[in-house]
Order: sequence, then structure tokens, then C-alpha cells
Amino acid sequence: MKLSTIRFGVIGAGRIGKIHAANLANRINDTEVIVLSDIAEAECNRVAEQLNIPNTTANYEEVLQHPDVDAIAVCSSTNTHFDIIMKAADAGKHIFCEKPIDLSIDKIKQIETKVDKTGITFMVGFNRRFDADFAKIRELVTSGSVGDPHVLKITSRDPAPPPEDYIRSSGGLFLDMTIHDFDMARFLIDSEVMEVYAQGRVLVDPVFEKAGDIDTAVILLNYENGSLAVIDNSRQAVYGYDQRVEVFGSKGMVTVANNTPDTHVHIDSEGTHSALPLNFFMDRYVDSYLTEMKAFVDCMKKKAEPPVTIRDGFMSVVIGIAANTSMKEHRPIRLEEII
Amino acid sequence: MKLSTIRFGVIGAGRIGKIHAANLANRINDTEVIVLSDIAEAECNRVAEQLNIPNTTANYEEVLQHPDVDAIAVCSSTNTHFDIIMKAADAGKHIFCEKPIDLSIDKIKQIETKVDKTGITFMVGFNRRFDADFAKIRELVTSGSVGDPHVLKITSRDPAPPPEDYIRSSGGLFLDMTIHDFDMARFLIDSEVMEVYAQGRVLVDPVFEKAGDIDTAVILLNYENGSLAVIDNSRQAVYGYDQRVEVFGSKGMVTVANNTPDTHVHIDSEGTHSALPLNFFMDRYVDSYLTEMKAFVDCMKKKAEPPVTIRDGFMSVVIGIAANTSMKEHRPIRLEEII
Amino acid sequence: MKLSTIRFGVIGAGRIGKIHAANLANRINDTEVIVLSDIAEAECNRVAEQLNIPNTTANYEEVLQHPDVDAIAVCSSTNTHFDIIMKAADAGKHIFCEKPIDLSIDKIKQIETKVDKTGITFMVGFNRRFDADFAKIRELVTSGSVGDPHVLKITSRDPAPPPEDYIRSSGGLFLDMTIHDFDMARFLIDSEVMEVYAQGRVLVDPVFEKAGDIDTAVILLNYENGSLAVIDNSRQAVYGYDQRVEVFGSKGMVTVANNTPDTHVHIDSEGTHSALPLNFFMDRYVDSYLTEMKAFVDCMKKKAEPPVTIRDGFMSVVIGIAANTSMKEHRPIRLEEII
Amino acid sequence: MKLSTIRFGVIGAGRIGKIHAANLANRINDTEVIVLSDIAEAECNRVAEQLNIPNTTANYEEVLQHPDVDAIAVCSSTNTHFDIIMKAADAGKHIFCEKPIDLSIDKIKQIETKVDKTGITFMVGFNRRFDADFAKIRELVTSGSVGDPHVLKITSRDPAPPPEDYIRSSGGLFLDMTIHDFDMARFLIDSEVMEVYAQGRVLVDPVFEKAGDIDTAVILLNYENGSLAVIDNSRQAVYGYDQRVEVFGSKGMVTVANNTPDTHVHIDSEGTHSALPLNFFMDRYVDSYLTEMKAFVDCMKKKAEPPVTIRDGFMSVVIGIAANTSMKEHRPIRLEEII
Repeated sequence: MKLSTIRFGVIGAGRIGKIHAANLANRINDTEVIVLSDIAEAECNRVAEQLNIPNTTANYEEVLQHPDVDAIAVCSSTNTHFDIIMKAADAGKHIFCEKPIDLSIDKIKQIETKVDKTGITFMVGFNRRFDADFAKIRELVTSGSVGDPHVLKITSRDPAPPPEDYIRSSGGLFLDMTIHDFDMARFLIDSEVMEVYAQGRVLVDPVFEKAGDIDTAVILLNYENGSLAVIDNSRQAVYGYDQRVEVFGSKGMVTVANNTPDTHVHIDSEGTHSALPLNFFMDRYVDSYLTEMKAFVDCMKKKAEPPVTIRDGFMSVVIGIAANTSMKEHRPIRLEEII
Repeated sequence: MKLSTIRFGVIGAGRIGKIHAANLANRINDTEVIVLSDIAEAECNRVAEQLNIPNTTANYEEVLQHPDVDAIAVCSSTNTHFDIIMKAADAGKHIFCEKPIDLSIDKIKQIETKVDKTGITFMVGFNRRFDADFAKIRELVTSGSVGDPHVLKITSRDPAPPPEDYIRSSGGLFLDMTIHDFDMARFLIDSEVMEVYAQGRVLVDPVFEKAGDIDTAVILLNYENGSLAVIDNSRQAVYGYDQRVEVFGSKGMVTVANNTPDTHVHIDSEGTHSALPLNFFMDRYVDSYLTEMKAFVDCMKKKAEPPVTIRDGFMSVVIGIAANTSMKEHRPIRLEEII
Repeated sequence: MKLSTIRFGVIGAGRIGKIHAANLANRINDTEVIVLSDIAEAECNRVAEQLNIPNTTANYEEVLQHPDVDAIAVCSSTNTHFDIIMKAADAGKHIFCEKPIDLSIDKIKQIETKVDKTGITFMVGFNRRFDADFAKIRELVTSGSVGDPHVLKITSRDPAPPPEDYIRSSGGLFLDMTIHDFDMARFLIDSEVMEVYAQGRVLVDPVFEKAGDIDTAVILLNYENGSLAVIDNSRQAVYGYDQRVEVFGSKGMVTVANNTPDTHVHIDSEGTHSALPLNFFMDRYVDSYLTEMKAFVDCMKKKAEPPVTIRDGFMSVVIGIAANTSMKEHRPIRLEEII
Repeated sequence: MKLSTIRFGVIGAGRIGKIHAANLANRINDTEVIVLSDIAEAECNRVAEQLNIPNTTANYEEVLQHPDVDAIAVCSSTNTHFDIIMKAADAGKHIFCEKPIDLSIDKIKQIETKVDKTGITFMVGFNRRFDADFAKIRELVTSGSVGDPHVLKITSRDPAPPPEDYIRSSGGLFLDMTIHDFDMARFLIDSEVMEVYAQGRVLVDPVFEKAGDIDTAVILLNYENGSLAVIDNSRQAVYGYDQRVEVFGSKGMVTVANNTPDTHVHIDSEGTHSALPLNFFMDRYVDSYLTEMKAFVDCMKKKAEPPVTIRDGFMSVVIGIAANTSMKEHRPIRLEEII
């Protein structure tokens, strides 16, 4: 171990926990994972062995109390975030937290106060900000290449619905899935969202209705600067993960397309054929997770403000709650009604 | 003149009148234009000479009373449509009428009654239905290639705002420009629109505000079958005429791209460069206007129902009025509130 | 008829004759076709009736002697070109001649002498020079946008082999089909071809071997300025007409893609699908034939040098003959060995 | 260290040596690099420190004699390959060798004999076989999706010429650069190359002429099964690394495009703009190097025949020598004249 190495504890060894643990263990210079925690002990041990992580525990408190742990990555279920974060901040650990921070506006505010007091580095996991395509969009928007932005369009569709269990505890489409798009909407346009109008449908699978959720949505956002944004979501795009963005403005437009595993074009007597989009986030965003975590590490080293702040995590939840209210009351909702 | 030739009178020698007159005079077998009418006499004569149209008049009544005229193309300003149509129907002339039929729901209903009674062929000029790209979208949707449609997205942006005079008499963005998109929304999804939510902005030019109009809009439509549609409009896309459609459904997605004057791709040390979209509707939709008029001629010959009916013309106006109301009242409007 | 109208006689009412006759009759201002000639009388009459051409004849001499004919379009089989041209030039008719002028170098030289003496306007029908895509390539090359051109690549594949009769009288792949590409090679690079190396194969259909011809070829051209060109040909691309060009140079590259009937992209669970290329030259080059003929008409009116000269027609045949020799002798052939 | 870990010595710490060392050290499970060798000691130490490689040496013999080394990666200059390979084989080390194995046909034959006798695993570094795009082309060709292949086209252009020193010792364009394309030509078409015709030029930089080399080339290959291939090369594409392939056959065509850092399309009033290709092989082929090395590791573990054999390394050199002869003698050269 080099002197400058940052030692991580990773809490949660599920899908997203594995991604962060692997990046921290193998793909980032000067970080290592010294302890992995999950209540599913067998899986936790299996992942730790594969990644040469020396310690495991079913009790995340041990991670927080471990004297060698400099920082933690919170990858457990959302309902555990608040307690972990509050205790970790008290223990002086830097915190990388997966989205959403919490589903309660009050609790996020408490976290904000706590983090401010302890002075730890806290970053929220909105990985799409670190994707090369979306970063390029922002670069072009920020540099004025599209002029004043007028209309932002985000298409975000999952390849297939999650399991029923997941749906029931997800917090609903807007807070589980669209939350990424709400963050994109704030990342790509340099103005704050002011009002939300949301329409939801169950068109994919009745299981969503049973769970009190929706699987299809269109959401319209108004910004303070007069720009408009439209987001469309589906829990099922049979052709794969559909992740596209377009910004239209006074000087032009910029779009990004889906990423594909290869660039082949095959033409036969029936038509012109090419590859499907990459299937899901583990493929599509593999590089963004790495870039994101490197950014967190850099911030800790430089004691700099993270590129995704608690405020960002807070606002995405506020917009999500406003979207839920809008759908329920069938009218546009101003964020000031919520906050 | 062959026996089967259909003799047209064209009323209106402006931008769109010229397109139809030229197609009827030169590019369609078995039609000819025997009289052209416009209050701007000099221009009317100039166009007639160029197209070898033998007669001109400043008084459209002469067209309607001309015994050799079988059919008329109504290309004059919207506020003249009602009188022309009512009199032409009485004179037994078949009628091709540019959109919108009229801005008043009542008057369109009167036209419907009149046309029903006289038995003439009446077709509305929603040319985009005859565009190869949009026709292909409909073909794929109708054939089930995208499964049940869930979300339709229409982007429709003009290259530059019309003159201030035009703006003041246009009927407003929704009834002048979006009306095409409302028709597309009904053409591409096999279900009736039920509710409209519209947001408008003046982001391009304050002249729109002075005229009580908007230049930028996002409109959300709900269909009876549960599908959703989003339309976004701008009066100014500096890169040209932006006309795109996407239909997403249970079995996949279909999109069409803008048309370009050529397919060149030029790569230099600065980047990869290709052509802009065709600049405006005269270029983009040149073939659709021809196909549209051929369809009208076919219907007259075969005494068949036209592919764009008065009902279609009516509904597009209803949706436009609902959009205006929604914008004004800042709430979703059900069509049944309007009709 | 207006004073400035140019009256054409069209010789040959086959596939290409029909295209030119229709353009001259209906789509070009200030031209008309007053006589159509073909040895297949019935077909000739049928075409004439459809296009409202008042006179027909089975004897092309009548066209040449018709006092009202200003110009002729030579669309008959190649072996008739020489006699027609020599007599038409004597009769003072302007001549548009389909490619190739003749298969004999000597005869083309005689034609050149004759045309020079009579001062008529003579243009060769290399329509691809007037295609929007290839014209754009030339524009970018000429303007220096790719710098000094280093390598030109032309792909030219027909959708399906012609009938056996056609093959036997075609003059062979290089003089019937590649001749267009040889002309493109001279059109796109501002230097003269110096040497040819050609390889041919029968990979599509043994009927070509029986006819002493080939169906697949790769040809390498050297230019005087050091540039290189590669042409690849096939008589059968099952996906349609494949017509692409790439120019690579010191400052970049420019390519053009195949044209398609629409821009749709359909994505389902199997893959991403789009349209096939336009099937053959009647679709792909419909606009280029019109632009070409307009250019000829302009040259006659302005007494200007045509954009495709006898010299151009001559050189394409010379390169074709060199390609045949190269293939036979299995070695590179310098054009100076041929001329 | 796990029992199954394969311990590597890497010889050569230059550009390509670093790539392989980093993959073996960090990105492949069950391999480690225990010694790195380079005559440039400082650089060797720097790389070793960065990758946590415990031992370094300026003398590659120490690598070959190291008792713990299971396998070596030969990344030194071509003129050292023969000695290293012969000694390593005697020492029983498995060998991954960068292309070309050697520039002498005789020496490669000696290596073949030696490797056969010792039974070690020997693989040549033609990384492009492991690129997702080219692997997809091969998959589609092998599966019959394009039918019988008729014409293969390979475009391979470097972004910028190498330093003069490199040029002088490179073995010339055909054996240094085109050798990858010769291997692709053998990888993508299931038939052996029979004849070569090559044309070379100095169009980029006179430094190539001074070094007796060329910077631009077009090469035509004949296969035993009648297929044809065309390769075009340049030492300088100002827009980046240009790596494209097209296979045309009786049932269709397949192409791959250049890879780009992102998919953005920016349209402004000037045109439509998108990203340049990835700049060079370190970016373009980063994944292929990893996949390649994993394949070598798999072969060692399973004692399977490597996917790139000595025979493959041998044939690419033979074709390169034939290309040199063809260019010099200005005639097609059959491989049997060389072997």
C-alpha cells in the first residue's frame, strides 16, 4: 500500500456495489477496498474473494468503525442510507452514496446539515454525468454551441422490468428510474427546474399496477430561464437500453445516440441491419462508473467540492416527488409547493 | 385534352397555390389547370404564364362558376375558405382544401353537412401523410412492427419565423403550424386524442409576444387507448427544417430522420461534417404534395373516400383549440370540453 | 411553342430513351420532343402517345432530316451511334449522345473531327456527373477541402445481371458498366489517368463466362499526378444498386452513401433495420438525368462548351480498352500503349 | 498468488510492451508480471513501478532464465525476436510474440520447427482479430450471411507518420503496417492468398523516400477461391486512425465504421458535425489487446492451439515480401515465387 492510497469500505455487494468495488479494487490507482459488507453473507464472501478484498462483514457498523477505512461507498438499499450516512459522517468517513440519497426531503436536509458540520467529502452517484456522450452534450451546451437552450429531450427506457420485489420497494418509477433523468435535466441546462407535469401509464405489465406503480411516463419540466424539458420513460424497450438526449437552442442542436457493441452494418436482400443498443446499464455505463469514482477520489485528495453535491441529490428527489404529485392530481406542480 | 382529364381551378397563387398548380399542370397525367385566381393580379398572371394556364381572375367566383371546372384547389387564406367551399359545393365542384379548413368548429361542421349533402369529393391538404418517411412509419405501426404503440414523439421546427404580417393572421402557432403535427398524431396512432396539455414560450423573437402568439411549444397528448404523444415545436431552427417522428411500442421503435440534399460526409482535422437538413417545406415535402394531389385525383375518378377527410380536418382544429385553452388555463384540457 | 423552345428528336425509345424523352417533354422548360424514333414501332408509338410526342418513325434518318428538329438525343444501341452522329452533324443538329460514343477509338476520333468542323454542340451522357452526391464530392475536392487527393475509391455494383442478350452485345463489363466509373475517376480527380491494372472474375453467373465476359472486377488506376484510384464492380448486389465514392487526401476525406427510398430506422428485439438502397439507376439517378439534360440545353442556348465533351467520351473508352488488355495480359497497361 | 496464476516476463517496455504489461498486471485474472525487461533502464523502472512489477532488468536473458517465469510477451524490436524466441523455447517458456515474428522467411521457418519440437504455446500478436468490429465481420462471413465472399476491402490509415528513426528500421510500409491488413485479409476470407499486386507512392512526406520507403499504397490480393481483396494504406490521415473493412458477397455485404469517442451530432447553421475517429491504436484497439491476451492465457491453460499461429505470422510476412517485389518489379507476384 502506498502512502497516498485511499482505503474504502463498500457497503452493499449487489449489482451496483460490485461495480464500485471492482473499480476501487482493480481499476483505480491509489485506492483499495479493505472491507466489503452485505447482509447476504455468502454473496459478500464470494465477491470479496473474487476481488481480493481481505475483510467482509454482515454488519455495516463494522465498516464504519474500522479505523483504516478512509471512505465508504454506500450501495445498500435506499432505506438504509440515512442511518449509514449519519453514522459514517460522525465517524469522519468520506461518503460516496448511490442515488437516491433518501426518499424523504427532511432526511436529506438532515444529512446536508450533518455533512456541512463534519466537513467530510460527500458525493452522490449520478453516474450519467460522467458518461462520455452526456458530458459532451453538456460541454457543447455550456460552451454556447447550441446558443440559449430552448428544449431538452431525454429518452430513457430500460430493456426489461425489474423483478416484482424490486418494483414494490423501488419508491416508484419517478424516484427509482426517472430520478437519473431529473438529474440529467439539471446537469444539461444551467437553470433550476420550477414546475413539473407528469403523466404515467401501465402499458407494459399489470404487475406495476398491482404495486401501485407505473411503467410508462412522459414528464414535462419548466425551468426558471424559460426552457422546457420533456422526458419519456419506459420500463421495457425490447431492443435494449435506450438512453438518448437532445438539446435544441437558438444556435443549433446536439444529440447523442445509443451505444452499440459494434459498428457493423449488414445489408442483405431483406434490408440493412445493424447492432442493437447495449443491453443495460452495466454495459452502457461501465466507463461512467469508473470515471465517476475517480472524480470522487480526486475530490477527496484535493479537498474539492464534488461534481455531484447533496444539493443535486436533494433536487432530484424533490422533482420526483413533484412528478408523483402531478400525476396524482393531474395538474402541473410547482417545486415551491413541495419544498 | 383527353376525355378523362380533370380540369382544375386553383384559387390562390401564393406559395402553396403555386406548388399545387404546377403539379396539376405538369406533373400529373390527366389533370390540367384551366383557371388560376388570386387577388394579387400581377403575380397571378405571372404564375399562369409560367405554367401555361390559359385563364386568370382576381375574383374566385369566376372559378366556381366556370362550367368546365371539375374541381378546385383552395389555396387562399384561411378566412376565405368557408365561403369558397360553401359556394363551390353548391356549384358541384370537387374540393381540395388546404389546412386548416377553418378556425371555427361550427363552420367546419356546416361544411361537413354541406359536403355530405352535395356528395362532392372533399379532401384536406395534410400533405405529410403522403411523405415517404411518415408513410413508412404508419406502415410499420399499422402492420404491428412496433407492437402496441406507447409513446409517439414528433419534432417539428421551422427554419425561420414567418413575416410579422403572417404571424398576426396565422391563427397562432397551434392552429397554423402544430396543426400538421396534430394530424400526424392522429395519422400515426390508430386511436383518438382525448386530452391535451400544452406549454408555450416566446424564446425566438419578441414579435410573437407582440402578436399574442408563441414561438416555442411542447404539447402532450393522451389517446383513448392509453398511448401518449409529445410534440415539440419551434419557429426557428437555424439549421433548417426539422421534421422527425418516433413511435415506440411494445415490440420496438421506428424513427425517421431529416432529409438532406446529399449524403456526403466530409472528415477533416476538425471533425466529421455532413449536410444540413433540407431547408423548408418546399424542398422537404415536394414529393408529398405531388403524391397528395394524385391521391385526390384518384379519389375523384374512383368516387372513393379521400385519405384525408373533413373529420380529419375538424379534429386537428379541435386539438389546436384545446391546446390554446390548455396553455391559457395552465391545465390539461379534455377534447369533450371543446366539442 | 415559345420562340426560345428547343425542339428535340429522340432516337431510341428503350429504357434510357424514355427517360430523356420524358424529361425533354415534361420536365424542362423550353424544350419539346417533336419526333421519337425506334425500330420497335409499337413501343415507339406507345411511348409517344404517353408523352404527347406528335411524330414517330422507325427510320432515324427522318429525325435527322426533319427541318424543325434542333437537337437530337442518341439513345439507340452503341453500334448505331457512329452513323447517326456523322449524319446528324452534317445536318447541323446538336447532339446529346448516350455513353459510350462508340467502342472504336478511331471512330470517336472521326466524330471529334466532324464535330469540330461543324461547330455543333455535342455532349456525352455521363449522367453521374450531375448527381447531387457526386457533384458534392467534386465540389469538395475542387475547393481543396480534402487537400491533394491521394486515393479515390469507387464502388459500383448493379442489383442484378442484365439479360443474356444484353451481355453478349454490351461490349463487356469495362466498356458497358465500368465506363461510368472511369468517367467518374476523371471527373473527381483533376489529373489524367496514366495506367490501368484490372482483374476480372466470373463469380455471379456462368452466363458471363459463356459470353466471354466477366461479372466482378477490381481495377486500379494511376494518375499523372501520382494519385491512385480503385474501382470495384459487380453485376449483382442482391441488396440493390450500390454506388459509393470516397476521396482521401492530404487534408481529409469525403464519402457519399447510397440513396434510400426513406430514412426509417426500425429497431425490434432482433436488431436495427433500415431501408435498402434504391434499386437501380432509374430510381437512383432520376434527378441526375434531368440535371444533365438541362445542362445540355443551357449549353446550346449559351453556345458554351458542354460539361461532358467528346474528349471525356473518348478517354473513358480508352481506359476501358486498357482495362480489357490488362486483364487479358495480366499486367498493368499504360494508356499510351493504346492511344 | 493463486495456484493457477500464470507468471509473465515482458520483454520490451515501449508503447506496445506497456499495453501488454498493464493488461497482464491489472486487467486479467490469474496472471501477473514478475519481471519487465528493456534496454532503456530508466523507462523500464518507471513502468514497473507504476504497474507494481517487482523485478526489472536490462538483459532479457534474465527473463528467459527466471525460474518462476511461465510465459513471455515479446514486445521488443523485430530484429531481437528470433534470438529471444529460440532461447525462450529452449527454456520452455510459452511465447506471445508481437508482429512481425521476423522479416526473414527462413528464420520464421526455424522458429516453427523449434516451437513444434518444444511443444510450447506460441501466439502472434495480430490484435485486430480480437477487435469487436472485425470479429463481427468474420462471424457474419463465416456464418454465410454475406454468401460466397467476392470482394474484401480494407482501409487502414495511420493518423500521422512515425518518427524518421522508426521509419528507417520499420522494414517498410508493407511489413510494418500493411502486415496487419494482410493478416485481416487471411482472417476474414476463408481461403489462402495466391497473388499480390502492389502500388506504392510517397505522397505524404519526402522523408519516406529518403528512407527508401513509401507512405501511400494500394494492394490487390487474389485468393485461391477466386475472391479479390483491395487494401489501401496511408501513413497520414489528418482526421485520425481510419480502420474500416467491407466484405461483399453473393448474399450481401457487411461493413464496419470507425470508432469514435462519443456519438454526439451537433447541427448548427453551418452544417452537421460529429466526432473524429479515435486517434490511434492505443485508443481504437484497447479492448482488442486485452481480449487477445486473455485468449493467449486461455490457450496456455487449456493447452489449445492459439487463434493466431506461427503459420499466420509466416503468411503475413510472405505476402508483405510479395508486395515489396510487386511494387519493385511493377507486376503481379504469385506467392509461390516467394516461398
